[in-house]
Amino acid sequence: MFKKILYPTDFSDVAHKALDFIICLKDAGAKEIVVLHVIDKGNFDAIARYATKDILEIEKNLKEGALAEIRPIEEKLQKKGFKVKVIVSRAIPVMEILRVEEEENVSAIVIGSHGMSNIAEMFLGSVSEKIIRRAKTPVLVIR
Amino acid sequence: MFKKILYPTDFSDVAHKALDFIICLKDAGAKEIVVLHVIDKGNFDAIARYATKDILEIEKNLKEGALAEIRPIEEKLQKKGFKVKVIVSRAIPVMEILRVEEEENVSAIVIGSHGMSNIAEMFLGSVSEKIIRRAKTPVLVIR
Repeated sequence: MFKKILYPTDFSDVAHKALDFIICLKDAGAKEIVVLHVIDKGNFDAIARYATKDILEIEKNLKEGALAEIRPIEEKLQKKGFKVKVIVSRAIPVMEILRVEEEENVSAIVIGSHGMSNIAEMFLGSVSEKIIRRAKTPVLVIR
Repeated sequence: MFKKILYPTDFSDVAHKALDFIICLKDAGAKEIVVLHVIDKGNFDAIARYATKDILEIEKNLKEGALAEIRPIEEKLQKKGFKVKVIVSRAIPVMEILRVEEEENVSAIVIGSHGMSNIAEMFLGSVSEKIIRRAKTPVLVIR
């Protein structure tokens, strides 16, 4: 029931707290974790509009930054015996989480609520509410 | 992290589905389950206004009906090795769930979303949303 878990993270404290709960779910059958970081398209577009640099370079930098932040998460999960898949995308967070939920055919979503991103303010309070309204699978919301 | 779980139920299909997830959490350390059924004060007051019977008798009947529905849930959980506490109260569902969360000092809430009660339509969609907005502990929402 918790076999394959989607873990959207904005690298906030509450997202890291959610990770501890995922690790706890190992004994309840969790095997594979899809770690997802969404670079908010809305924020990105707003930045890109006034950018002096090439926007492709900005996107590349953001993605590299995100991957660097994900690496220790990936290692932590692998050490605990989980299979890990990492996805970083530029999209609308709620839409992307629901898209990956379906595409990866996950069995549950574990998400921190009211997190603020280190890179950009991403998951506002309403993200988790929209997720539980529209997700097909169980959602564990960590405060 | 999932040691003591609050399980609010309206006896709907989705609430029963949530029970299966609770059972799964045993291996993740769940030991004690607080089974809570709230007789919606709003619905009760509306019924009571037009009642020809004594309202205390109506409340007694509703509570007995709820306890009868809880008994097989309690037995199922006990058979799986959980310690079980049952609470039936007449209150505002969201407020009562949050009150019991605090009073019982639970470590998580597991709740079905969009359930309809057999006794009265109780947990509408927004209950779980209000819960995740205001709960202090992690909330697992089952669809």
